[in-house]
Amino acid sequence: MTDLLPADAGFADRLAAALPEGTLRPAEPRYLEEPRGRWQGQAGLVALPRTAAQVAQIVAACHAARVGVLPYGGGTGLVGGQIQPEGPPALILSLERMTAIRALYPEENVLVAEAGAILADIQTAAAEAGRLFPLSLASEGSARIGGCLSTNAGGVNVLRYGNARALCLGLEAVLPDGSLWNGLRRLHKDNTGYDLKHLLMGAEGTLGVITAASLKLSPRPAATGTAMIVVESPAAALRLLALARDIAGEGVSAFELIHRTGLDFLAEMLPQVRQPFAERPEWTVLIELGLSAGQAPEAALETIFAEALEQGLASDGVIAQSEGQRAGLWAVREEIPTANRMIGAIASHDIALPLSLVPDFIARAPEALAEFADIRVNCFGHLGDGNLHYNVFPAPGRSKSDYAAQRDAISRAVHDLCVEMGGSFSAEHGLGRLKVADLERYGDPAKLATMRAIKAALDPHGIMNPGAVLRG
Amino acid sequence: MTDLLPADAGFADRLAAALPEGTLRPAEPRYLEEPRGRWQGQAGLVALPRTAAQVAQIVAACHAARVGVLPYGGGTGLVGGQIQPEGPPALILSLERMTAIRALYPEENVLVAEAGAILADIQTAAAEAGRLFPLSLASEGSARIGGCLSTNAGGVNVLRYGNARALCLGLEAVLPDGSLWNGLRRLHKDNTGYDLKHLLMGAEGTLGVITAASLKLSPRPAATGTAMIVVESPAAALRLLALARDIAGEGVSAFELIHRTGLDFLAEMLPQVRQPFAERPEWTVLIELGLSAGQAPEAALETIFAEALEQGLASDGVIAQSEGQRAGLWAVREEIPTANRMIGAIASHDIALPLSLVPDFIARAPEALAEFADIRVNCFGHLGDGNLHYNVFPAPGRSKSDYAAQRDAISRAVHDLCVEMGGSFSAEHGLGRLKVADLERYGDPAKLATMRAIKAALDPHGIMNPGAVLRG
Repeated sequence: MTDLLPADAGFADRLAAALPEGTLRPAEPRYLEEPRGRWQGQAGLVALPRTAAQVAQIVAACHAARVGVLPYGGGTGLVGGQIQPEGPPALILSLERMTAIRALYPEENVLVAEAGAILADIQTAAAEAGRLFPLSLASEGSARIGGCLSTNAGGVNVLRYGNARALCLGLEAVLPDGSLWNGLRRLHKDNTGYDLKHLLMGAEGTLGVITAASLKLSPRPAATGTAMIVVESPAAALRLLALARDIAGEGVSAFELIHRTGLDFLAEMLPQVRQPFAERPEWTVLIELGLSAGQAPEAALETIFAEALEQGLASDGVIAQSEGQRAGLWAVREEIPTANRMIGAIASHDIALPLSLVPDFIARAPEALAEFADIRVNCFGHLGDGNLHYNVFPAPGRSKSDYAAQRDAISRAVHDLCVEMGGSFSAEHGLGRLKVADLERYGDPAKLATMRAIKAALDPHGIMNPGAVLRG
Repeated sequence: MTDLLPADAGFADRLAAALPEGTLRPAEPRYLEEPRGRWQGQAGLVALPRTAAQVAQIVAACHAARVGVLPYGGGTGLVGGQIQPEGPPALILSLERMTAIRALYPEENVLVAEAGAILADIQTAAAEAGRLFPLSLASEGSARIGGCLSTNAGGVNVLRYGNARALCLGLEAVLPDGSLWNGLRRLHKDNTGYDLKHLLMGAEGTLGVITAASLKLSPRPAATGTAMIVVESPAAALRLLALARDIAGEGVSAFELIHRTGLDFLAEMLPQVRQPFAERPEWTVLIELGLSAGQAPEAALETIFAEALEQGLASDGVIAQSEGQRAGLWAVREEIPTANRMIGAIASHDIALPLSLVPDFIARAPEALAEFADIRVNCFGHLGDGNLHYNVFPAPGRSKSDYAAQRDAISRAVHDLCVEMGGSFSAEHGLGRLKVADLERYGDPAKLATMRAIKAALDPHGIMNPGAVLRG
C-alpha cells in the first residue's frame, strides 16, 4: 500500500473549493470519541456531503491525493471502526446529511433509504406503512443504516429475520477510486455477476462507502406473546428452542438466555426492575412469538411451556398476560447490560458458537479461565443465534482496574476456546480496529490472503478506513 | 490475463502420476452436452477427485501450468456455465465422487454436505431428520449442491426461504491458486472480515471451486394447503399476495402466476393434465401455505379467498381438499414448462422486476415486441419473487426455426424493457457463457470494473472457468 498523506489544510482548501460551502469543517469532539472510551480520534476535518455525487467527488479527491477516508455513520460501533487514533489523519466522511427515505413500496415490502438515515426512523417509516423493518439494536436511536449494513449488524431479531445483510436487496456505494456504483435494485432474484453488495457489507468501510440501500421489509406479526421460562440447563434451553420452533415455526422471534449472575447484578444495581421469580433461577430464557392473524401467541406459549414441563426441560415460567407484563419481562433482559456497565466488566466477549455446542462451551469455559482468580462471569445473549455475550467481571468489592494486567489473557482464553470449538471471536460487532490482530491469529490463512488481494485490487492506495479490518 | 494452455496428454500424465489411479480419464460425451443443446463441449479430460485435498492439488497444478479448470456439478445449468465450446481445452473438474453428507445437526438445523451431493439427496436426509432443506428446483434429482450454490440457484420456495445463498452458513472451497479455504462454519453470526462465501456464490466457478457447504435447514411446516385462484389481472394478483401475507405471514411458501396461454398449451399438448376451471381463465395464481402446528391451512386459504372476492381481486377459486387435489393443482403449474418444450420457444427469458412493476411490464412488453409479427407469449413464473419466465413462441402452425433471424432481437427487446424498468436480465439462472455480452451491455460500469479487478486479483492467470461470466 502507498504511504498516505494527511487531510491537511492545503488538501482541504482545494477540496472545499470544489464543493458547496459548509461541506467541510473541523471535526467536533463527538467524531473523535466512541461509546466504550477505548480510543481517541485525532483532530482533523469532517466532510458532510448531501448527495452521493458529492461523496464520489470527495472520495475521488482523496484517492488522487492519497488521503485516507474514514466513513462515519452514527458513531455507535463498539470495535473502533469509526475512530482513527493514529496514522496520517484521514478525512472523516459523515453521512449525517443524507437521511432521506427516498421511497417506500409497501406492496413490495421495500424501503429505499440514504445511508445516513437513523435506524429507528426507518423502523418508524416502515411501521407507518403497516410493515416491519426487523433490524433492532440497543443503539437504534442513533445508529445509521449505512453503518449497520457496513458492519452487518445483528441484534435481537436475527433468529427470525437474519442479520443486516439478509435485509438488504441493493446498495448504492462509492468505491475507493471515487466511482459510483448504482446497485440499488429492489429485486428478490438477480444473478448477474459477483455480489458486490455482500462484499461491501461486512467490509466496515474498507472497500467503499455505502450511500443508500434498498431494504427488505416484512409483514407485521398480528399478535405478539412473551414468556420467561426457568430451564434446567443451557442444554435444556436448546431443547426448548427446538420444541418452540416445532410448534411455532418461524413465529419464534427471540430466544434469549439469561444466567443468574445477570439477575444478581440487576438486583444489586437496579432493584427497581421487577424480577418475575422470587428465587433467582440459575438459567432462564426469554421467548417471544410473533404470529399472524387468527393465532393466539399466549395459547402457543402455554402449549410450549406445558410440553417443556412434561419433558423435564423447565420447572417454572411466566407468560405475559398484558402489554405491561411483556414490557416488564423485556426490561429484565434489556437492563442486564445496564447493570453490567454499572459493575464494570474486565472484558466483554461477543462470541458465536455452533448452536449445539453452546452448553459445552458454557461448561468448559470456567476451566479455561481457572488460572484467573476472583472473577465473576455473566453469560447471556441471543441463544437462538448461538451468540453469547460472555462477560467477565471483578469479584465483589474489587474494580476492573485491578485486573488490567490480566485483561488480554482473559480474552485470549475465551477466544481460544471459542475458536477451537468452531466458533467466532466476533459474532455481531465486527472487527474494526479492536480485532485486527485477532483476525490475524484466528483467521483462515487462505481467507486472509484473499481479503488482502481484494483490498489491494480495489483500494490500491489503501485510503478506505485505513487500519481497520486489515493492517495497513 | 495469461494465455492458457490446453489440458493435453503431457499435462495429464504429470498430474495423473501425483493422484490416485483413476482420478483422471477422458471425458465421456455426457460432460460435453447441456440441457438445451445450445453448446457442445470439446473432447478432453475429466478429473474425479475424492477429497478436497485432491481438488486443491489439481487446481494448484492447473494454476502452475496455466491450464484452465472447468468446475462441473450436475450439468443441469441452462446458461452454458459448465460447457467450454472453444479456447484451449480446460480440465473438467467433476465433484461427482464427493457426495457425502458429512454431518447433520437436527437440533441446530444444520447439514454439512460435500459439493457433489445431489440436491434431492440432501432434501431426503433433512426430511429423515424431521427437517426441511427448502431449496427446490425442477432439476433437483440431478443438480449437485456445489453447482446450486455457485450459481445461487432459485426455484419455487425463494419467496419464503430465500435463494441458495440464503441457505448457506459456510463453505469449504479451493481458490484459484490451489489454496484450500476452510470456511465451513455453522454459525448464524460471524462478522470476521470480508464474506468470501457470498463472493463465491454467484461467481459460477470463476473464483474457485466449492468443495463442501454447511447448509441451513428449517422446521417442516406441520400442514400444507394449496389453492388456485382466478384473478382479475396481474395487479390483482399482487394485491392478493399482499393480502395472503397479511393473513398468513411467512406461511406463504409459493405464489405462482399463470397466464391462459400456458393453460392453452397444456390443453393442446398434454390434455391428460386435468385443469381446475371449465373455461380457461386469463390469469390464475397458485398459492401454497405451509403452517405450523395447530393451524389449518385450508381455513386460512378460505379466509384469503373470501377476502379476495370481497375486494374484487378474484372471481373463482379451488382449494385442494386432499393430497391428491394438491398434487393435481401443482401438476398444472409444473407441466407448463413441459408443454412449452413441446411447442418449442423462439426465446426464453428468465427476468426479475421490482414486484410492483410486474403488471406494468406485462402491459408494456407487447408494445416492445410489436414489430415481431405472428408470435405468442407465455408469461408465467414466481410472482412472489417478481421472477417471470417470459417466453416467446411461434404462431400456431409455424416452427421456432422460422424465427431464427429474429431471436436475438426479440431477446434484446424483452431485456431492454426489463432493465429500463429496474429489472434483471438473469433472475435465477446466472450468466454462464450465454449472458456474458448481456452483462457488458446492461451491467453497471463500476460493478463491471470491480468484478474484473477481483477476478484479476484472485485468478491472475484466468484459469477458473475461462470464458464464463467475464470475457477472458
